[in-house]
Amino acid sequence: MNDIFATHESEVRSYSRTWPAVFDRASGSWLYGEDGTPYLDFFAGAGALNYGHNNPLLKRKVLDYMERDGVTHGLDQATSARREFLETFDEKVLQPRGLNYKVQFPGPTGTNSVESALKLVRKITGRESIISFTNAFHGMTLGSLSVTGNSMKRGGAGIPLVHATPMPYDNYFDGQYPDFLYFERLLEDSGSGLNEPAAVIVETLQGEGGINSSRPEWLRGLYELCQKHGMLLIVDDVQMGVGRTGPFFSFEEAGIQPDIVCMSKSIGGYGMPMAVTLIKPEHDVWDPGEHNGTFRGNNPAFVAASEAFRQYWSDDVLEKSTIAKGERVGAVLDELIAEFPAAGGVSKGRGLARGLGFEDTEVAGKISRACFDRRMIVETAGPSDEVVKIMPPLTLSDEELEQGLQILRDSVRAVLA
Amino acid sequence: MNDIFATHESEVRSYSRTWPAVFDRASGSWLYGEDGTPYLDFFAGAGALNYGHNNPLLKRKVLDYMERDGVTHGLDQATSARREFLETFDEKVLQPRGLNYKVQFPGPTGTNSVESALKLVRKITGRESIISFTNAFHGMTLGSLSVTGNSMKRGGAGIPLVHATPMPYDNYFDGQYPDFLYFERLLEDSGSGLNEPAAVIVETLQGEGGINSSRPEWLRGLYELCQKHGMLLIVDDVQMGVGRTGPFFSFEEAGIQPDIVCMSKSIGGYGMPMAVTLIKPEHDVWDPGEHNGTFRGNNPAFVAASEAFRQYWSDDVLEKSTIAKGERVGAVLDELIAEFPAAGGVSKGRGLARGLGFEDTEVAGKISRACFDRRMIVETAGPSDEVVKIMPPLTLSDEELEQGLQILRDSVRAVLA
Amino acid sequence: MNDIFATHESEVRSYSRTWPAVFDRASGSWLYGEDGTPYLDFFAGAGALNYGHNNPLLKRKVLDYMERDGVTHGLDQATSARREFLETFDEKVLQPRGLNYKVQFPGPTGTNSVESALKLVRKITGRESIISFTNAFHGMTLGSLSVTGNSMKRGGAGIPLVHATPMPYDNYFDGQYPDFLYFERLLEDSGSGLNEPAAVIVETLQGEGGINSSRPEWLRGLYELCQKHGMLLIVDDVQMGVGRTGPFFSFEEAGIQPDIVCMSKSIGGYGMPMAVTLIKPEHDVWDPGEHNGTFRGNNPAFVAASEAFRQYWSDDVLEKSTIAKGERVGAVLDELIAEFPAAGGVSKGRGLARGLGFEDTEVAGKISRACFDRRMIVETAGPSDEVVKIMPPLTLSDEELEQGLQILRDSVRAVLA
Amino acid sequence: MNDIFATHESEVRSYSRTWPAVFDRASGSWLYGEDGTPYLDFFAGAGALNYGHNNPLLKRKVLDYMERDGVTHGLDQATSARREFLETFDEKVLQPRGLNYKVQFPGPTGTNSVESALKLVRKITGRESIISFTNAFHGMTLGSLSVTGNSMKRGGAGIPLVHATPMPYDNYFDGQYPDFLYFERLLEDSGSGLNEPAAVIVETLQGEGGINSSRPEWLRGLYELCQKHGMLLIVDDVQMGVGRTGPFFSFEEAGIQPDIVCMSKSIGGYGMPMAVTLIKPEHDVWDPGEHNGTFRGNNPAFVAASEAFRQYWSDDVLEKSTIAKGERVGAVLDELIAEFPAAGGVSKGRGLARGLGFEDTEVAGKISRACFDRRMIVETAGPSDEVVKIMPPLTLSDEELEQGLQILRDSVRAVLA
Repeated sequence: MNDIFATHESEVRSYSRTWPAVFDRASGSWLYGEDGTPYLDFFAGAGALNYGHNNPLLKRKVLDYMERDGVTHGLDQATSARREFLETFDEKVLQPRGLNYKVQFPGPTGTNSVESALKLVRKITGRESIISFTNAFHGMTLGSLSVTGNSMKRGGAGIPLVHATPMPYDNYFDGQYPDFLYFERLLEDSGSGLNEPAAVIVETLQGEGGINSSRPEWLRGLYELCQKHGMLLIVDDVQMGVGRTGPFFSFEEAGIQPDIVCMSKSIGGYGMPMAVTLIKPEHDVWDPGEHNGTFRGNNPAFVAASEAFRQYWSDDVLEKSTIAKGERVGAVLDELIAEFPAAGGVSKGRGLARGLGFEDTEVAGKISRACFDRRMIVETAGPSDEVVKIMPPLTLSDEELEQGLQILRDSVRAVLA
Repeated sequence: MNDIFATHESEVRSYSRTWPAVFDRASGSWLYGEDGTPYLDFFAGAGALNYGHNNPLLKRKVLDYMERDGVTHGLDQATSARREFLETFDEKVLQPRGLNYKVQFPGPTGTNSVESALKLVRKITGRESIISFTNAFHGMTLGSLSVTGNSMKRGGAGIPLVHATPMPYDNYFDGQYPDFLYFERLLEDSGSGLNEPAAVIVETLQGEGGINSSRPEWLRGLYELCQKHGMLLIVDDVQMGVGRTGPFFSFEEAGIQPDIVCMSKSIGGYGMPMAVTLIKPEHDVWDPGEHNGTFRGNNPAFVAASEAFRQYWSDDVLEKSTIAKGERVGAVLDELIAEFPAAGGVSKGRGLARGLGFEDTEVAGKISRACFDRRMIVETAGPSDEVVKIMPPLTLSDEELEQGLQILRDSVRAVLA
Repeated sequence: MNDIFATHESEVRSYSRTWPAVFDRASGSWLYGEDGTPYLDFFAGAGALNYGHNNPLLKRKVLDYMERDGVTHGLDQATSARREFLETFDEKVLQPRGLNYKVQFPGPTGTNSVESALKLVRKITGRESIISFTNAFHGMTLGSLSVTGNSMKRGGAGIPLVHATPMPYDNYFDGQYPDFLYFERLLEDSGSGLNEPAAVIVETLQGEGGINSSRPEWLRGLYELCQKHGMLLIVDDVQMGVGRTGPFFSFEEAGIQPDIVCMSKSIGGYGMPMAVTLIKPEHDVWDPGEHNGTFRGNNPAFVAASEAFRQYWSDDVLEKSTIAKGERVGAVLDELIAEFPAAGGVSKGRGLARGLGFEDTEVAGKISRACFDRRMIVETAGPSDEVVKIMPPLTLSDEELEQGLQILRDSVRAVLA
Repeated sequence: MNDIFATHESEVRSYSRTWPAVFDRASGSWLYGEDGTPYLDFFAGAGALNYGHNNPLLKRKVLDYMERDGVTHGLDQATSARREFLETFDEKVLQPRGLNYKVQFPGPTGTNSVESALKLVRKITGRESIISFTNAFHGMTLGSLSVTGNSMKRGGAGIPLVHATPMPYDNYFDGQYPDFLYFERLLEDSGSGLNEPAAVIVETLQGEGGINSSRPEWLRGLYELCQKHGMLLIVDDVQMGVGRTGPFFSFEEAGIQPDIVCMSKSIGGYGMPMAVTLIKPEHDVWDPGEHNGTFRGNNPAFVAASEAFRQYWSDDVLEKSTIAKGERVGAVLDELIAEFPAAGGVSKGRGLARGLGFEDTEVAGKISRACFDRRMIVETAGPSDEVVKIMPPLTLSDEELEQGLQILRDSVRAVLA
């Protein structure tokens, strides 16, 4: 590997250390090294490539748009592509689900969306405090970091991170205690010392936090708690939205309608930076320009996103396929866990956000490296990187899925046997 | 104008209100409405389009790359395109200027870069406090907002913005008082109450703040003050870098070497979201992954950026042209000011970041609207939007420049006559 | 009542509203109105008068000292009276209990002591965050307020109170859940989002919070948790120290040795403002003058305190008497609760810090007023003032105790019957 | 010196190090060591002993009150002594000066008063930010510390001190620049980045900060600036009130009426802990009990204070005497400065708050020690302890004044000659 990355890129680089190859091309579920070596991608750009690399159905639209000099950069000016996005999103995504949201383009990343959401709930309520959850991950800018759990990331802030209080995520105590017991008690007790929260921010399935899936009834309980106590509910669907768990929004199964939804990663369809913040109309109290940013209008991403809505969200084929493939992954994980009972493995997640956790925090990293040796890209997750994180493109074929699962099997066996 | 923007997009939208057209195509210095109406663009994506819209020299490279399935999304994995960027940036930009920086890809926007810089200086120094300047603009996420001056934007935070103290920017008192008198006195007096600063963050020319240009000797004075008092110097070159003021970096004229430089907007060449944080090697104390983000690797932008370095920064043609065109703009501004002495106009800026300020804070907005009526896009700037902000693509032709200046003349006369 | 209090004193006054009499003299367990009306004092200056009003054993010493022009005001200069205090405190209090603390005189009030403790633990550990408990009360200055639970008091700060996280106090969930389950899980999980705490601050019995008594085993568990996780333990013994619960320190029964102990109220013996912060020698890392204040040397209070140590803490007579009287109060409370089962009364506290709580939050206030009508001073406590707070001087006679309990019986019956 | 102070008192002790004697008695302007050695006190309890030690005119009243069992400790209950204080303060102090303030008893120390003032201005305005001044000193609790300048004291907080911005005190730039130029510009510029201030807190003469006296016209300018920009004005008269500069309030000469006045130290007359916060009636928006504290009612101090008002503030004898004596001190300081021109001495202060500053920051400490060797107590002040601080009791005799000035002369000569 050419070491200009070591000599010229900051020490902060990470994935280029994890997977020491220089990639050149990519297509569908595959990345190719400069020497042509193919790597099966079970990471999918950390959830930004739900439709695969350079998806051919979207590629033509994007290239045609760019070829004909469609607006590339447009700040938040009105463009044909932006209109197409708004219309298609409404028609294919919101309306069929009975949802009504205003769309904010807050800047092109997940953390931009989270920052806009935090600002907005504070403006709406006049309160400062936010409730976050153990092992949450919401981003690296200062507002998002304050609601993120990981202590190494938090330490990077260099200032005390305040205005947020963590509450236990679903199953944090393995179901031993009633949900929200502590949370609700603190809210109801005027002497509890908890600053009155503006909002709760939650991932329905924590990706970075270790593929921790919350139950629909827990989410409903949280939603009701928010309504009862005048807190707004923000769902951060940056990683788990756009079909990762099956349905377009990860909260659909729970049947809730969050006040604000943060989306990024796969929303742009083609892996290009884009984000939206969805806001219930009654909460859209922004003044014009109160939150802005240069890259609020990535028009090629609008084009790709619109086509993706048409291709993948006009029916439920992708959703059902994701659920089915997810169950297939789950079954293999169960087999592997049964095969090595001493390792204390645990199968986590839903849809195609799956995890294989181990008590020994060294194991997951070893499996990831063993996969890379077998030319598959798999990341780890969790506070101690103790979970193998399995997130292939949703569009992978059954053959690719089986190929990947076999590599996973081989790698687990190589590490644990 | 189709009103889906009004019905489905958040009230936070702003430029689509300022310029009520729906744009479809764009090329070079021109935007085209859906009905084919051409608009001369003297705004250039707020500085993100220094090479013009869909620059044909870069377009071919980008489309070829995407056509051949070059990696589009790659997080911070090593790719051929990323290597090309690092090599070309070093060869064409850093080395010829005698600069030595490690490159961080902090996420694709200016505010991501600023947030990374603030975190890093706090880590390096173990201090929390940052010195910013009056009328500074650094971004909308919480860390960046705390060092931004605009009270409306600050109010959007919804929490008290702390850990930053504003100091007077160059010429804040019209040269009546010695530079840094107050600042240095506070630093030297152990009883001043100023928290010891980790760093100073400065724009060499404040764009959003009203096209306020600092003098080279002021920047040098600031640099020396930082060195004397153990503060790091961050130059936010997000808007004024990549040739906007003539040289690649806006601080070159001053002959300083900031500890950290934040870049975004035009760094990606083609208007696609991309950002870098440049760090003096001795300050690159990041732990791997301590600051991360999904869109740290916008590879098509790397391709465009590399080609832009080759095309525009292999010689000094663009730099000289920018300075010459800037002087031409300045001359016309001077004429207009002389033509309407009662308006108290003032000519501001340098290179092709130019401003025409007025005492009456209504005037600049009227001129901007008059320009739009004449099919030219011109923005306003300053705390009261009292400055007409003239920032065309650097690549505009002399004819386009004259055409735009004539529209400006006509508009100023229509408003002031 | 002369209404100069209404016309000239701030609206913030409170007890003069609760007990609308103008008091003139006081002695032992009695306050006397200007018209000579005696009031039995079961409030004891909120714990500042454990030895009664103008205790005759102490009075002579104080008056003799003042009469002979002993130093009254001495900042933190060395004086004979200060030496006497240090020596007597060591001999009568610390040594017999096997304790070894350095004494800081942090300013004359409880909140001064708490502020000094919070500053010191942050200096020692280099961390900012403090763990407090639900319904804690530690004082009204900004540092102390941030670790106080009461939402009305917190709201008075006018700024967000940060750097503290509340944890459930003992029995907050009526024993349903293991102690410290949530707290320890947050500490152990590096992804929990809890900022690493410098210290835990706790009252062993929460006075203002509603006479909530913690169990010795809970305190021991907390002490062990602190040691295990490198957190310092601050016991706020401002109200419950100096024998209020029986032993001199309220934490003696638990057998723990806190890192820092805050004392005020009765420490000065005679109701004069005085406070000390006790610091384990290894934690005494203060620089000279790093925390100061004008009234660190209330010398008449030193004289009274020293004599009080000699009179009351040379043997265990007072301690045993307090425990016995406390049990007598508890027995009467139990009878009253049994007499009015529908009221859902609950007997709280230990020693002579006793409470009678009710489900209906109006009841306690009515009982307090009924007591005042019967010429007894009794306060309420708890987040909704739902607890009758019974805190007579420890020195009251058995006859006075029975007299007060009869008034309490009559008042409860008048309200509940 | 018995070393129990070294073995048992915290390292934070300071004055007992500066003046290594153990004091036993005190009367008027004199402190007496245990061996009977008299020390002339030119420090006066840091301003808490304006009427001298154990003032015989006040002593009788205090002892009679205590002897007859007048209420000693009364929280904020109405008492005869409290009424007497309110009435006498109104009659002797407020009414003759045409002032109308509600009186809050915020706890017995200066920092309690400052904390109450900061909370109140935040409640009134709904803003968080406070403007303080370079070299201000307001106290050691967290709120007061945030508006204090001294970096060593600030560092003791252990958390970032925020919500306050320092502005240059009068003459900070030796009159070179117009007053409030920078301050007002920041207020008027909506892009300045200054958080909108709730209030300004100021000492009219900075004691701890180095005996820096502000001019009446500067104070008037500040007052007008506050009124123009909707900021409240808090005068911290804790050290400089009660006649220290001549008039009862130190702001009388300027002819202003602050919104809030903080008083402590000598307000209680006899050196006993007591404080008041004076609030313009229209600003008295406290809820009952919103700020409280155990020692809000130091009744012996009320008695002493009332008698002091009668004895010293029924006419202008003390005021004139203080001014005359202050001028006498100033004349001697001028002579000393003239005698040692090389030392660059500067005469500071007004009334009997006087300072002798030196360029060499070692000199003042040496003079203080030389004075102590000659049996006089004199403190230093200023960020580098570069000022000899001369603050005798206001009640000292002319002979005592001359005696002290001679010791000062001898000491200065011993150090500088």
